[in-house]
Amino acid sequence: MATAATPTRTFPPTRTPLNRTRPFSHFSRLRCYAGAKAPILTASNLTDPSPAFRSLTAFAPATVANLGPGFDFLGCAVGGGLGDTVTVSVDPAVAPGTLSIAEISGSSSASKLRRDPLWNCAGIAGIAAMRMLGVRSVGLSLSLHKGLPLGSGLGSSAASAAAAALAVSELFGGRLTPDELVLAGLESEKKVSGYHADNVGPSILGGFVLIRSYDPFEIIQLEFPHDRDLFFVLVSPEFEAPTKKMREALPANIPMKDHIRNSSQAAALVAAVVQGNVRVLGSAMAADAIVEPRRAPLIPGMVSVKKAAMEAGAFGCTISGSGPTAVAVIDEEEKGNEIASRMVEAFAKEGNLQSIATVAKLDRVGARVIGTEAA
Amino acid sequence: MATAATPTRTFPPTRTPLNRTRPFSHFSRLRCYAGAKAPILTASNLTDPSPAFRSLTAFAPATVANLGPGFDFLGCAVGGGLGDTVTVSVDPAVAPGTLSIAEISGSSSASKLRRDPLWNCAGIAGIAAMRMLGVRSVGLSLSLHKGLPLGSGLGSSAASAAAAALAVSELFGGRLTPDELVLAGLESEKKVSGYHADNVGPSILGGFVLIRSYDPFEIIQLEFPHDRDLFFVLVSPEFEAPTKKMREALPANIPMKDHIRNSSQAAALVAAVVQGNVRVLGSAMAADAIVEPRRAPLIPGMVSVKKAAMEAGAFGCTISGSGPTAVAVIDEEEKGNEIASRMVEAFAKEGNLQSIATVAKLDRVGARVIGTEAA
Repeated sequence: MATAATPTRTFPPTRTPLNRTRPFSHFSRLRCYAGAKAPILTASNLTDPSPAFRSLTAFAPATVANLGPGFDFLGCAVGGGLGDTVTVSVDPAVAPGTLSIAEISGSSSASKLRRDPLWNCAGIAGIAAMRMLGVRSVGLSLSLHKGLPLGSGLGSSAASAAAAALAVSELFGGRLTPDELVLAGLESEKKVSGYHADNVGPSILGGFVLIRSYDPFEIIQLEFPHDRDLFFVLVSPEFEAPTKKMREALPANIPMKDHIRNSSQAAALVAAVVQGNVRVLGSAMAADAIVEPRRAPLIPGMVSVKKAAMEAGAFGCTISGSGPTAVAVIDEEEKGNEIASRMVEAFAKEGNLQSIATVAKLDRVGARVIGTEAA
Repeated sequence: MATAATPTRTFPPTRTPLNRTRPFSHFSRLRCYAGAKAPILTASNLTDPSPAFRSLTAFAPATVANLGPGFDFLGCAVGGGLGDTVTVSVDPAVAPGTLSIAEISGSSSASKLRRDPLWNCAGIAGIAAMRMLGVRSVGLSLSLHKGLPLGSGLGSSAASAAAAALAVSELFGGRLTPDELVLAGLESEKKVSGYHADNVGPSILGGFVLIRSYDPFEIIQLEFPHDRDLFFVLVSPEFEAPTKKMREALPANIPMKDHIRNSSQAAALVAAVVQGNVRVLGSAMAADAIVEPRRAPLIPGMVSVKKAAMEAGAFGCTISGSGPTAVAVIDEEEKGNEIASRMVEAFAKEGNLQSIATVAKLDRVGARVIGTEAA
């Protein structure tokens, strides 16, 4: 269902410390991106870079945000070829310093997307990256191939934004740091789905990402041990999650005891990620007592799907993002396939919904270049 | 102000996996300790062990619970010689299978403690350990030396319980696992200061400890990297924290946005501990927006003490446990001494309170044996 992607990390290693906890405010010229009301950076005082390629294609993976008690601040990237692909090309027919969307293809819902770059996730992020680079003499055309369906809860808009930001940066020789790429992607998310970086962060950086604060903007990468296996079972039903109802389902206030309980689960989840304990990771992910119990009943069959996943041996199961995709975790691919079958059955039986399942590893790489054409 | 202790880890290594996240329920015979309403374990089906020593002395360190956003589920042990010491001796004058408190000495407030072992932290934990071991033929006398003042917010009752539980276990050859020792200590905390293991857990295990759940009882040790330095500046004013008011200051409900913010700080705190990032650890510890802002005004000068600590270069500062001790963190001892001076000054100037300061390293060892006398 998605374009296969060659996992090639293209960030210069010196720019990508894996345990980075450096606040974004260290990039003083980027501070203006950290707050929604900040003035737009003008390109006048930046260099006007030359393209390193005529055309470049980047892929950015799907992401699972929230992960239960990590609501609104935790996310991770998933493999399995799930993600969006963006090609940017130097185009003399496009006015210098601007970007035009030439084509949108891919998943059936891709036709709903607007081609006005100011109202398209990939377009907004691409323009933000151009502005950060100070591109004034070159016009770009952009093609977006959607590997992810819209509104699935797998970070579809973030994947488009991540791929576009990386593609533009790499077209000009990879001048933006991963941190800057996240900020470019966040410009897009802000306009399209809210000022949240828990999808675009992991889509660009790969692995698990904790968004600690927005003002100053600060992100922490959590390294899952390389010698451990972690599989996500992603089951997406053919159902449009009622966005407004999903949002309204969130309580304005919560009891102190629920806060303490959920916080300790979020803390345990982070510890489990860093320690590579998939069993604890799963059980913490499944232990959200605030958001999931209120949202799950709004997705037909979800409560039964979680039950089926756990009975089939999943270490944990919850809603991916704001749904409707259900996500379960396990440490073996074969068990993952079995769990996927049970979850698909439960969506059909209890929710009367068809669904598509993918068993995917953690994507540790994030957005990457998958093709270039020389200038 | 406290008894110096030789840092000798006495737990057999095979019993102390440092990254343990094993739930206590794996010890099936201990499940009955996990819930407050569980039946008391009878010793009839356990062996009646012989003492390995005539007398044994154990030390357990002071602890800092809560650490800001880790309210009610996070704690760590601190060095600097702060802690309580317990000696247990085989005593033919004490009825077999029972424990008697022979002496309580140490800090000025020690005279307030009861010598009835059923109403004394060390006594309760010692008896719990005897019951777990199935001791029926030997009577023990216990001496408690308080290195910690009562009600200081440094886990005074937990240190007594931890030292007593370890002393009894080691007197009989170290038969209880660290997990079991925590449960013995929790028996005491339950009776004396509430069913919380965020002091007794780290006092026994050392380092940082996350209490994930009580039913089933599950604890996660967080290993702070051995090649990093972490210092705690502990400043205890001469002030009795108004326990009832401190408890009443907690809100019954909190806004969802505060929950998300605090949870992400707790998650960042855990990540910072495991990654050894003292700067993030400090700033996360200082970022509690729920409990600290309500409790700090109840401790004269505390708000100014925190301000003074931060201005003097502390990475973070908050209330230790439920106070009145203030705790700041830093990565260098010398800076710690400077911060301590500023904090003591602020307590004097703004709170009109005398205070005692200690700059202590993280205690990575926890409760340990510091002396034995052959049987």
